[in-house]
Amino acid sequence: MAEARIIDGKGFAAGLRARIGAAVEQLRTTHALVPGLAVVLVGEDPASAIYVRNKGEQTREAGMHSVTHRLDASTSQDELLRLVNQLNNDPSIHGILVQLPLPGHIDAQAVLSAIDPAKDVDGFHVVNAGRLSVGLPALVPCTPLGCMMLLKDTVKDLRGMHAVVVGRSNIVGKPMAQLLLQADCTVTIAHSRTRDLAGICREADILVAAVGRPEMVKGDWIKEGAVVIDVGINRVPARDPAAAAAGKTRIVGDVCYAEAASVAGAITPVPGGVGPMTIACLLANTVTAACRSAGVPLPAGIGL
Amino acid sequence: MAEARIIDGKGFAAGLRARIGAAVEQLRTTHALVPGLAVVLVGEDPASAIYVRNKGEQTREAGMHSVTHRLDASTSQDELLRLVNQLNNDPSIHGILVQLPLPGHIDAQAVLSAIDPAKDVDGFHVVNAGRLSVGLPALVPCTPLGCMMLLKDTVKDLRGMHAVVVGRSNIVGKPMAQLLLQADCTVTIAHSRTRDLAGICREADILVAAVGRPEMVKGDWIKEGAVVIDVGINRVPARDPAAAAAGKTRIVGDVCYAEAASVAGAITPVPGGVGPMTIACLLANTVTAACRSAGVPLPAGIGL
Ligand SMILES: NC(=O)c1ccc[n+]([C@@H]2O[C@H](COP(=O)([O-])OP(=O)(O)OC[C@H]3O[C@@H](n4cnc5c(N)ncnc54)[C@H](OP(=O)(O)O)[C@@H]3O)[C@@H](O)[C@H]2O)c1
Ligand SMILES: NC(=O)c1ccc[n+]([C@@H]2O[C@H](COP(=O)([O-])OP(=O)(O)OC[C@H]3O[C@@H](n4cnc5c(N)ncnc54)[C@H](OP(=O)(O)O)[C@@H]3O)[C@@H](O)[C@H]2O)c1
Repeated sequence: MAEARIIDGKGFAAGLRARIGAAVEQLRTTHALVPGLAVVLVGEDPASAIYVRNKGEQTREAGMHSVTHRLDASTSQDELLRLVNQLNNDPSIHGILVQLPLPGHIDAQAVLSAIDPAKDVDGFHVVNAGRLSVGLPALVPCTPLGCMMLLKDTVKDLRGMHAVVVGRSNIVGKPMAQLLLQADCTVTIAHSRTRDLAGICREADILVAAVGRPEMVKGDWIKEGAVVIDVGINRVPARDPAAAAAGKTRIVGDVCYAEAASVAGAITPVPGGVGPMTIACLLANTVTAACRSAGVPLPAGIGL
Repeated sequence: MAEARIIDGKGFAAGLRARIGAAVEQLRTTHALVPGLAVVLVGEDPASAIYVRNKGEQTREAGMHSVTHRLDASTSQDELLRLVNQLNNDPSIHGILVQLPLPGHIDAQAVLSAIDPAKDVDGFHVVNAGRLSVGLPALVPCTPLGCMMLLKDTVKDLRGMHAVVVGRSNIVGKPMAQLLLQADCTVTIAHSRTRDLAGICREADILVAAVGRPEMVKGDWIKEGAVVIDVGINRVPARDPAAAAAGKTRIVGDVCYAEAASVAGAITPVPGGVGPMTIACLLANTVTAACRSAGVPLPAGIGL
């Protein structure tokens, strides 16, 4: 069997960021429009702090307006809602992202609902979930948007393919299924209650794993030639026992890559596959939101 | 093979209406709450006029407050929007239904979006589509809600069953898939682009056909013992050639009932299956909306 084509998410994301940079430059010169992203971090969660820093850096590198609000962990829900409201009304801000998780005393759903849906670049607002569901223009969650871009780049015409999505979270699995349906795939959603998951996966021309279980999807769950998108990011002990004993770790996906690569037609590696697409798609969503708010056509190569 | 159990939607709908009647009586006496439904008809479409009359009658029979607005076909979009706004602000009205189709000069999407999502008893507003999608309490479109009630009555525990929905409209197929997913089924959505539709259907423990093609689903598309929900309402020529030549018609579903009944475990007939559930679920949604707006618990036997 031929080895699967490796879907280079890292490379694709770099290309997307370059297209975004060019688009931002063009929007600035021809429409005096500078897309702006505000990121709000509450508290000191170290992983969140790194994400927020990366988002700010990549936003600035793309030539966009970038604002980061770092609030104390003790910030009240009311204070946070006031800030969201201020950003909703700030014409220089087209995208608002409140980094999750929020401290326990804050109702995340209430905060996400307070974001103007037109500025909801995370795509978590119910209005955007609804718009995606009924087929109206929506801001789509970044990770499934990134998966979809990789798929369209890999497969070209998805119509009539059978896509199986394992996982049904609101931020990955469900919007992923909606996008695949919109692309005219036959779509199956599987989850922890699914019986004969291996058999269901074996039907897939396109298999998306968004589960959070290291290497759960085995090689013999995959149909010969299928396209496999591995969303999982799981930290497991290092391969070397001594290193593992010393607490060293490595990152693996939800798919057993070594097995899958000899069956699949194409596959995203972990790391370097879906992961790098997420922030790039956040920038893309911010450009989309800015263009929509200004009534300017979206430059080519930014959306789906 | 044993003949399939016939799922008596007509009987179930009658029982549901009786439970609604009792609930309305109880809400009136214990909470001074009278659920109210306003139906708006624009123009003279004869089929729409019949639906609207039936809705009004059944609403009154259940002891609810019922208002029907019949507007001239020449009504402007602004006038209609003013009426919707007035109903949004009317505390005696808990449910608003604008009968579709609307005349061509009116933007249906604009009108549906103007309805307060809390009064959107058709469940067509993007906010309700979004709430359903992310798993928040929503008002759910009546036809899939009715299908789900019949399914839960027939199957009891749907968890882990493989449900296949043929059709992906916003008013039937997509919300049906969401409800089945919420009930922990593995869900496949198929449509006009699906390859090997027969093979996909054969995987189904639960098969929902919402296509609009007379008797498209054949007996050998159905797994032995599967539960079949036939949403289709298709008018075809009468069986008797002379009657057919005289223009007589009959109603059939999307499933070839005669073939399916000897394979399926249970099946909805057409007519008398899903059809009668739709208006009953409209009443149920109105009671649900009234209880939510008043902060009163929903009486048992009305929701899912
Ligand atoms: N930038 C990125 O690349 C990115 C972004 C987001 C997430 N991720 C990664 O993607 C993965 C999924 O993220 P998420 O946020 O969607 O996770 P999540 O909210 O925990 O959802 C996991 C889903 O997987 C299902 N599941 C759990 N165990 C299963 C099993 N044994 N068999 C079948 N299904 C099972 C769950 O089913 P139930 O619904 O039945 O519980 C649930 O729907 C994680 O590894 C996460 O780190 C990566
Ligand atoms: N009260 C009730 O019982 C009630 C209420 C509503 C509807 N209905 C009936 O239910 C049926 C469906 O209604 P709807 O409003 O959902 O219809 P619709 O909006 O026309 O949608 C029909 C769906 O069926 C799919 N489809 C069409 N031809 C197909 C084929 N050959 N193979 C597979 N899929 C096919 C279409 O796929 P594409 O998306 O690819 O075009 C579409 O998703 C109709 O018969 C309608 O009268 C009954």
